[in-house]
Amino acid sequence: MDIFDRLKAAAADDWSSYVDHDFVRQLGAGTLPEPAFRTYLVQDYLFLIQFARAYALATYKSRTLDDMKAAQGGLASILGEMELHVKLCGRWGLSPADIEAAPEHQATVAYTRFVLDCGAAGDLLDLHVALAPCVIGYAEIGRRLAPDGVDALGDHPYREWIGEYAGDAYQDIAVKARRHLDDLAARAMTERRFTELAKLFGHASRLEADFWQMGLDAR
Amino acid sequence: MDIFDRLKAAAADDWSSYVDHDFVRQLGAGTLPEPAFRTYLVQDYLFLIQFARAYALATYKSRTLDDMKAAQGGLASILGEMELHVKLCGRWGLSPADIEAAPEHQATVAYTRFVLDCGAAGDLLDLHVALAPCVIGYAEIGRRLAPDGVDALGDHPYREWIGEYAGDAYQDIAVKARRHLDDLAARAMTERRFTELAKLFGHASRLEADFWQMGLDAR
Amino acid sequence: MDIFDRLKAAAADDWSSYVDHDFVRQLGAGTLPEPAFRTYLVQDYLFLIQFARAYALATYKSRTLDDMKAAQGGLASILGEMELHVKLCGRWGLSPADIEAAPEHQATVAYTRFVLDCGAAGDLLDLHVALAPCVIGYAEIGRRLAPDGVDALGDHPYREWIGEYAGDAYQDIAVKARRHLDDLAARAMTERRFTELAKLFGHASRLEADFWQMGLDAR
Amino acid sequence: MDIFDRLKAAAADDWSSYVDHDFVRQLGAGTLPEPAFRTYLVQDYLFLIQFARAYALATYKSRTLDDMKAAQGGLASILGEMELHVKLCGRWGLSPADIEAAPEHQATVAYTRFVLDCGAAGDLLDLHVALAPCVIGYAEIGRRLAPDGVDALGDHPYREWIGEYAGDAYQDIAVKARRHLDDLAARAMTERRFTELAKLFGHASRLEADFWQMGLDAR
Repeated sequence: MDIFDRLKAAAADDWSSYVDHDFVRQLGAGTLPEPAFRTYLVQDYLFLIQFARAYALATYKSRTLDDMKAAQGGLASILGEMELHVKLCGRWGLSPADIEAAPEHQATVAYTRFVLDCGAAGDLLDLHVALAPCVIGYAEIGRRLAPDGVDALGDHPYREWIGEYAGDAYQDIAVKARRHLDDLAARAMTERRFTELAKLFGHASRLEADFWQMGLDAR
Repeated sequence: MDIFDRLKAAAADDWSSYVDHDFVRQLGAGTLPEPAFRTYLVQDYLFLIQFARAYALATYKSRTLDDMKAAQGGLASILGEMELHVKLCGRWGLSPADIEAAPEHQATVAYTRFVLDCGAAGDLLDLHVALAPCVIGYAEIGRRLAPDGVDALGDHPYREWIGEYAGDAYQDIAVKARRHLDDLAARAMTERRFTELAKLFGHASRLEADFWQMGLDAR
Repeated sequence: MDIFDRLKAAAADDWSSYVDHDFVRQLGAGTLPEPAFRTYLVQDYLFLIQFARAYALATYKSRTLDDMKAAQGGLASILGEMELHVKLCGRWGLSPADIEAAPEHQATVAYTRFVLDCGAAGDLLDLHVALAPCVIGYAEIGRRLAPDGVDALGDHPYREWIGEYAGDAYQDIAVKARRHLDDLAARAMTERRFTELAKLFGHASRLEADFWQMGLDAR
Repeated sequence: MDIFDRLKAAAADDWSSYVDHDFVRQLGAGTLPEPAFRTYLVQDYLFLIQFARAYALATYKSRTLDDMKAAQGGLASILGEMELHVKLCGRWGLSPADIEAAPEHQATVAYTRFVLDCGAAGDLLDLHVALAPCVIGYAEIGRRLAPDGVDALGDHPYREWIGEYAGDAYQDIAVKARRHLDDLAARAMTERRFTELAKLFGHASRLEADFWQMGLDAR
């Protein structure tokens, strides 16, 4: 059992409220209303801007050149992903101007600033535990929604999104993030601290669930 | 017209959504349901913890010993106020254990972490502009709800809360906070930056409005 | 053996370069040239300003209200101590204007910004380990220089300084700081991390030794 | 006159103590003792690690995606430059193991942590003004030491180092950094603040001069 599995087990209800959220179920079933998805997409773009800042914070807080290079790689790839995101938005009828003009929703502010504050007030382990529901959770959700592989999705309306997170490239990112979490925990996690981290992880998971809910509420 | 008045004018709709919120009207009319007030009180306590951190951040970011002492004074008085807050909660049937066990609501996380992040990413002026809807806004709300003075409130159910913010001590805090904002602006505010600050102020005001809404939704 | 004793043992040479420094020996023997002491006093005042910022940072990074109150208490007492410091400077012919006009020496910048950066990049344990050579070390030095108590110092030219740190009030601060270090370590210190912390502690001790050297070089 | 020229004029003595330092003169004349250069090279490598952190901090503190991408580009290029630096060290008989085992000198700690603290406590303008003596100053020094172009340096013992900073690629980086400083100043610099920034710039220049002195002292 790695740290990520231990965190999930310790915050099982919060975790489930996130990964089993109606938004996810409807996305998987292909029944999610388009306005819900579109609202989600726009906010997820605004989310990624703050998420890139979180990786910049991780680079700043790194103690070794290797950690710094790894965090900088994460930062560079998020900034790259954002261009893909703009394309995906385009296919759903959202122009870059629409996206940039959108105000950040309360749910977006809550989760992103919570993560950034965990990182500013704590250490790298706090920061990466707060990021884990997103970074590692999306891989878990992607795999669940494409149990027979991306090809089996056929003309699923959300095939592109599911394919992104179910695909090997993203799955590999999540595997590395799990290992990194184990490394950070081996350095600075006692059992007493695990209890705190599980609370933080649960809180971050609930904020992710609220992020899905924001999409659903836009129907 | 001081900076605070300019910010209010530039973000008039957001400001109005906050100070004219139904929660405030019902609080003033004495018709606010008790569960709404109680939910607000508990979250406001959790809010104050983060607010104290924001003043600690201001102390850390101070450039002069005078600024540092002023910020430290603010921090000390918030930590003192929290004890008063516990008493007020007690009168509404909320024990310290109830308060501490309460999870932070999304609206609490969103506003507090937004303020802290403005301060961590920006400078003291950003931080104090983000704090202004709360610090200075509560004085404005207090005065509005007690137009004929606190004594005229009679046995108003929310007399104690209104009296706190309408009273001279808090009004004086707000006057000093306005002057401090002017000082900070004289140092580091160009007109180009004013546009950004007005956007930040508007955002913070909306997050305050969401905080009231959280109370109303608890009815 | 508490964490502080373990850190001293692990960084024995660096520690000794600090607590057994010629500046300390000459201070204890009463033979330290006045210009050396005066230079030290002025830089120590500039040091305290940054030191207060470090306690503000600790307050900001606190996770519990108790930790926050403890850090805020430390901050308030440093700001108070600075007024005593101004008095001590006055007795050595240094006016407040002299002190404030003095540029920060490289040694002052190096140690203070190193501590602040440890705190900004790491967690509370990193910050307090970086502060320990100063907070706890001064108590150890004070006791060594007054082995028979402060009264036995007679008309020692540095009696006031030695008395400050050998006295019960300061000794008590150091005892509490040691316990706090143990608490923080119980939360977030693994043996692997101890190695890093010992390196950090050694580095901070060398920077303290450089601070004494700056005084001696001013002769 | 751009902001950089104004800062230089306002802190003329500090600036001159840095760009006209004996280390620079001897480097230009080719008479700098090898041990001085070698000591400098090793410390400059340790300096670059912290410098990369400063660009990560700038990325974290960015307000727009464009600023974030620019800062991330700077970060990526520093991490790239460090590999070139290792090669240069190799030519002077310094293995990567030598470099990594070297303790940070007080002068390295002082300048790097000063810059990082300016950035953490202030805003992006503070951070970039603190970085300017290094980023822009090295281009000025490079051009001075190769007044007739890099080719005219013949078999100058420090041709490679001078060529790096006198070359078009680095000169272009400095031109962009100057423009960026002007942009940041247009946003958040009043005349009152200019006085503070000039003080900060002067302090950073002195810390750079101390960095050269550290090299000379190693002879």
